[in-house]
Amino acid sequence: MYHHIKQLMYTVRVGTPDPHFGNMLLEQFGGANGELAAAMQYSVQGLNCDDPERKDLLMDIGTEELSHLEVVGTLARMHLKPLKHKRGAAIADPMIAIAGGGGAALYNSMGDPWTADYLKITGELDVDLRSNIAAEARAKIVYERLIDFCEDPESIDALKFLMTREITHMQAFTAALVSMGKPEFSIGKIPPTPGLVSQYFNDSTGVGDLGETDARGPWNTGGQWEVVEAPAFQELRNQWAGTRETGNGHQQKRVPAQSASKKPAPKKRTA
Amino acid sequence: MYHHIKQLMYTVRVGTPDPHFGNMLLEQFGGANGELAAAMQYSVQGLNCDDPERKDLLMDIGTEELSHLEVVGTLARMHLKPLKHKRGAAIADPMIAIAGGGGAALYNSMGDPWTADYLKITGELDVDLRSNIAAEARAKIVYERLIDFCEDPESIDALKFLMTREITHMQAFTAALVSMGKPEFSIGKIPPTPGLVSQYFNDSTGVGDLGETDARGPWNTGGQWEVVEAPAFQELRNQWAGTRETGNGHQQKRVPAQSASKKPAPKKRTA
Amino acid sequence: MYHHIKQLMYTVRVGTPDPHFGNMLLEQFGGANGELAAAMQYSVQGLNCDDPERKDLLMDIGTEELSHLEVVGTLARMHLKPLKHKRGAAIADPMIAIAGGGGAALYNSMGDPWTADYLKITGELDVDLRSNIAAEARAKIVYERLIDFCEDPESIDALKFLMTREITHMQAFTAALVSMGKPEFSIGKIPPTPGLVSQYFNDSTGVGDLGETDARGPWNTGGQWEVVEAPAFQELRNQWAGTRETGNGHQQKRVPAQSASKKPAPKKRTA
Amino acid sequence: MYHHIKQLMYTVRVGTPDPHFGNMLLEQFGGANGELAAAMQYSVQGLNCDDPERKDLLMDIGTEELSHLEVVGTLARMHLKPLKHKRGAAIADPMIAIAGGGGAALYNSMGDPWTADYLKITGELDVDLRSNIAAEARAKIVYERLIDFCEDPESIDALKFLMTREITHMQAFTAALVSMGKPEFSIGKIPPTPGLVSQYFNDSTGVGDLGETDARGPWNTGGQWEVVEAPAFQELRNQWAGTRETGNGHQQKRVPAQSASKKPAPKKRTA
Amino acid sequence: MYHHIKQLMYTVRVGTPDPHFGNMLLEQFGGANGELAAAMQYSVQGLNCDDPERKDLLMDIGTEELSHLEVVGTLARMHLKPLKHKRGAAIADPMIAIAGGGGAALYNSMGDPWTADYLKITGELDVDLRSNIAAEARAKIVYERLIDFCEDPESIDALKFLMTREITHMQAFTAALVSMGKPEFSIGKIPPTPGLVSQYFNDSTGVGDLGETDARGPWNTGGQWEVVEAPAFQELRNQWAGTRETGNGHQQKRVPAQSASKKPAPKKRTA
Amino acid sequence: MYHHIKQLMYTVRVGTPDPHFGNMLLEQFGGANGELAAAMQYSVQGLNCDDPERKDLLMDIGTEELSHLEVVGTLARMHLKPLKHKRGAAIADPMIAIAGGGGAALYNSMGDPWTADYLKITGELDVDLRSNIAAEARAKIVYERLIDFCEDPESIDALKFLMTREITHMQAFTAALVSMGKPEFSIGKIPPTPGLVSQYFNDSTGVGDLGETDARGPWNTGGQWEVVEAPAFQELRNQWAGTRETGNGHQQKRVPAQSASKKPAPKKRTA
Repeated sequence: MYHHIKQLMYTVRVGTPDPHFGNMLLEQFGGANGELAAAMQYSVQGLNCDDPERKDLLMDIGTEELSHLEVVGTLARMHLKPLKHKRGAAIADPMIAIAGGGGAALYNSMGDPWTADYLKITGELDVDLRSNIAAEARAKIVYERLIDFCEDPESIDALKFLMTREITHMQAFTAALVSMGKPEFSIGKIPPTPGLVSQYFNDSTGVGDLGETDARGPWNTGGQWEVVEAPAFQELRNQWAGTRETGNGHQQKRVPAQSASKKPAPKKRTA
Repeated sequence: MYHHIKQLMYTVRVGTPDPHFGNMLLEQFGGANGELAAAMQYSVQGLNCDDPERKDLLMDIGTEELSHLEVVGTLARMHLKPLKHKRGAAIADPMIAIAGGGGAALYNSMGDPWTADYLKITGELDVDLRSNIAAEARAKIVYERLIDFCEDPESIDALKFLMTREITHMQAFTAALVSMGKPEFSIGKIPPTPGLVSQYFNDSTGVGDLGETDARGPWNTGGQWEVVEAPAFQELRNQWAGTRETGNGHQQKRVPAQSASKKPAPKKRTA
Repeated sequence: MYHHIKQLMYTVRVGTPDPHFGNMLLEQFGGANGELAAAMQYSVQGLNCDDPERKDLLMDIGTEELSHLEVVGTLARMHLKPLKHKRGAAIADPMIAIAGGGGAALYNSMGDPWTADYLKITGELDVDLRSNIAAEARAKIVYERLIDFCEDPESIDALKFLMTREITHMQAFTAALVSMGKPEFSIGKIPPTPGLVSQYFNDSTGVGDLGETDARGPWNTGGQWEVVEAPAFQELRNQWAGTRETGNGHQQKRVPAQSASKKPAPKKRTA
Repeated sequence: MYHHIKQLMYTVRVGTPDPHFGNMLLEQFGGANGELAAAMQYSVQGLNCDDPERKDLLMDIGTEELSHLEVVGTLARMHLKPLKHKRGAAIADPMIAIAGGGGAALYNSMGDPWTADYLKITGELDVDLRSNIAAEARAKIVYERLIDFCEDPESIDALKFLMTREITHMQAFTAALVSMGKPEFSIGKIPPTPGLVSQYFNDSTGVGDLGETDARGPWNTGGQWEVVEAPAFQELRNQWAGTRETGNGHQQKRVPAQSASKKPAPKKRTA
Repeated sequence: MYHHIKQLMYTVRVGTPDPHFGNMLLEQFGGANGELAAAMQYSVQGLNCDDPERKDLLMDIGTEELSHLEVVGTLARMHLKPLKHKRGAAIADPMIAIAGGGGAALYNSMGDPWTADYLKITGELDVDLRSNIAAEARAKIVYERLIDFCEDPESIDALKFLMTREITHMQAFTAALVSMGKPEFSIGKIPPTPGLVSQYFNDSTGVGDLGETDARGPWNTGGQWEVVEAPAFQELRNQWAGTRETGNGHQQKRVPAQSASKKPAPKKRTA
Repeated sequence: MYHHIKQLMYTVRVGTPDPHFGNMLLEQFGGANGELAAAMQYSVQGLNCDDPERKDLLMDIGTEELSHLEVVGTLARMHLKPLKHKRGAAIADPMIAIAGGGGAALYNSMGDPWTADYLKITGELDVDLRSNIAAEARAKIVYERLIDFCEDPESIDALKFLMTREITHMQAFTAALVSMGKPEFSIGKIPPTPGLVSQYFNDSTGVGDLGETDARGPWNTGGQWEVVEAPAFQELRNQWAGTRETGNGHQQKRVPAQSASKKPAPKKRTA
């Protein structure tokens, strides 16, 4: 059950309304990484959650995001109000001006309607917590960019409040994930295929005109990693050399896995 | 520049086509967590990336996902083929049957068209890597569920190949994030507000009929955490006690932050 | 500011989960006339509202709809739970089964993502109240149909609770509209053009094979009404008679309005 | 069966094309409250309608809206034409300029494609008439705002014609609803639960910084109304007082309805 | 201006309603290649068209498609009617059953709302006619598949009427395109780059497990055609041979065009 | 299987970034007629294709379009880069600026997310080739318009490369269609109804204020064509003359076809 109190979680004030900035603020009202998306992602996860403790966490933060929605909507409303009557302002967002009467609406800064396709909900708790950590990181950087574009000090104060809370939530979701005690890359119940899971496919090769590299790093070198040089390229070379045995599907099957077991020298590098 | 080789990354075979399973497979062809979403998320991140080494990583995996798209699409095609001519099968996905002629199409299992709203791309590299880690975790669990619903052993083999690769990518993106050397909760450049960032708002309280708890855990207890008991509840209590000073916006401003500095006893708990 | 209490507004119980009915329930969770649509329509109207009294009304009901969202989502969750593990059940909504893990999600019964395009918000208070009255009438009939399709007595009890509340809200919105004291067909500030406003254009004529009539009723007969017999037909007759003066745009301008002032006998009927 | 006559229902003329205004006009061509939405809502309702007299009404007005679509599209076309060749104009709507060649298109002023999600059709005649009354009210206010932003006198004349017709339709739909003779709040066949239907839940309380009130009015006072003070708040108070009996779901069931029958003094107000 | 006559262009009759077939019919009511899409594509093209003669053609056929929309909608309505009251039927399309009351609606067979994104309108007349020819071909094959799935003889008669008309329109649009007298591959005003326009890039090579070929045909052999063997492969070979001159962007620029002028032997084949 | 080479198919350079032009370029990155739409339309058609030779063609061009996607995305990225930091530039596309960090994204110039609804895929090879021919014509004219709006010579060079390739593809798809050897208007297997297929319905009549004509041309005159003067008009005339026999559905059935067999003089014209 929800209750609403007629007080914002953060009191907003605006000096001079800035219609273009009001339009930008809609990113966090009705946009992909905005407050409704956060509120719904966590609240719906919470509604479906079977872990009572982390369900509480999801409901706590989901509810806080509803309060944030109200804060950012009120701020947007203040900046958008001139759209209703001033044609110069209306150009910042004609749909808000003409159809919406200058009010905040659940559309983003380019007028796209909020859609549940923004949400990432799988019902697998640790997976959902990872989605939430990423969502909070995205929301944080979006608020930072809004602050960079904002010229009104009091609006900036409100945005800093909201931005800070995203980091709070990112920390809480991370703690909740860690406390589940699952091995780092263990998702669900079916284990990945050994050997294959350690192969790094080098599918993009060459050096670009702007210095793009075919790089090595801890994501393909050292530890478990075994690099499989471009699976498709390997095939190309065979064709070039006339060695491909067409139609022998079985031999081609699991090319990378087989190449791993055979470990032909020129095809891969080990750290 | 891309090149295509007429060979699947994993050769697929299907015993008896299973139209309903073919429809389910579309989740990974044209669905929210599917292979086109993965291919586009990483490739577009890569296209925009200014870090040449991680750009290579993004392009490697983005390209591999295109090859996965081809594998899962070919598998779906085999299971969906009866839809074109058999009415009993067509009911599994009438749009595929009638408009699509029984072919794989970029729609999910409920017929929603693939949309770029599925993608999470901010242009902030470490944020995008977090989104990618979460995306791979989601894709893994989706493949696992498909395997659970699949009755065809050879289809299961192909799905295990694809499922395993998601873990590989999850590991690679994690290594790439860690190797950036950023502090764990440092996103962007503007730091969060000290004090406020450590407050946990207890916005959902009480005990539910099914034993839902108002829980404590490492996400709100110990370390930095300070619990602010329901900000709205606090206000309600004041109203109930007749102590709220209406209109005194300044005093209400940043209620949580102020309560933090004042630390009134009944409002919060410290671990 | 919002607060959440871990108790449903109406405690739901389910005997035997009914996956197809669970899918149907999604109409009121993530569907066009569902509880999120209601919650957002009223809450966003309220956020933008300048009339403090009716703003309170909008916030009261908008908040109640959030509690309804939780009730209907919990009910849907109970009926959908078998989708996660039983393939026979999964066919009722494969996206929920595979991507959503059998949880309630903000999609309708055909899998369409909830979209802000469902909302009707203009920022003109009396217009918005009319949209709300219509929205509540729609929600009522949808609950009635769900009840008709439901075989579980306890689910029916919960649906009757929710259905009843829609009528309550319809009454409240009607009272709020009436109490504004505006003349019945006065919208905004610019008055309609006299004469033209009283013309009924008979644009669909003839008698259909199933007895469809070219009818008269209080919507085109009596009082103010003046019927203009098919404007296009009038033109056709002139062409047929060779009397149309091509290119005489001014004469053609406002054909209906002019016909009103000239009142040529065969063109209209007066009650 | 439809026939088209090569004459507009209202002859449009434009002095100086105004690209930004042309873009705004798209709200009524391909927007949520525009003429295609009106034409399709009424025509599809009419197609499904079993009441032959009101079916005629729906077809009359549905067809008239098609003629309006042609008028507003022609007007938009005139204002948008410079987009095709002038880059300065193209910025008003680059999609129309580049993809559409400067023609009117079924998108709104922010470029969103027209979608059937705009339509409100339930197949319950009196409910649909309410949706139509609201739709006409919305369309009227949108035309009024367009007139306010329009600087071309002849365009204003055309918009006033269209605006007036919305009031005509609003009157006709209202007459059609009234003539059905249904009790005012009787929707469908299942009656609402007595007692519960008369309870007003006060879910938003307190006084806001800008003077937002917890108001009383004819929507919650007098007549049938019984106010239930915040259901969630009530629970909070019990928790605060230590009186809540956890787990006693049955007692909690239908909290509001029960509170109605018990009528505890402090929880509700009667007028 | 439009006029409606209460008679279908083709009188429809239905023996036994077939709910699943009714759902399938929605493909041609509210689907991507359906009658509303056709009506809107041609009518909006017509509205924007500056060629008076072909504008008439577009309006003739656009209007006919509105009459077809009515025919197919009436047919769908007859087959869908049981959805309102029979739960077994409702499963064929629960949204139609619950939200739509068993009426035809502008959604496709998987419940996707009709969207203007289905339309192909550029405002370039000969281009639009090509889009229309393709659209009619698609609509024809969709009707054919519906006929194949239909078990009701009278429904089949109506579908054959509609199917035939698509071929009529395809012929008319083709005649209109041919009569414009434009050279076959001349689009717009800017000519393609000579040489480059005649190069066929062989971007997909090898032989697949199912016998997929690297084929030659009149689309890459004979006449103007010059085959450029895989541009990316060419680069790969250079890398393999150690001959790529990194950073020499100018030399790499327009690789295909340059290779065309140099015509190095191994890179291409001429017929 | 796909492989990526770190070199663009056409090396792009940009003098001064032009944010508004960067936004316009998104039409060809994430827009309806853009490179992703082309890549996916052909590649998915190819994946489903049973004709090995034309499957190769589809894969060749589908893969080339992926390389084009990379070229146009890189070009857009260069023009959009200022959006991340300059507020004046950000107004060109605030979503890209704030949510996307100034990177290319799969949205069009008005911010609509790329959707699979852009694709035209039926699985009927000759029909799909017609859709592809039309798609290439559209892409060509869109590039031409972008060139017209572009002020940067090097960007123009890249766009001319891409534009030329569309003509190449149009030629190849046409050759592939012609070489199938199907009669010109033969689609699928069910033949159109003779007689009816040759009737041209004159559904839009009269002369418009701007000289719109009721035209004759090779699309309704000569050869097979028989003109049926407005079917609805015909009915209107009967009503006017009092000759319509209401309820005689059978007589009305297939009005046009019957009128064809009867050939009443005033209803049609033969060349």
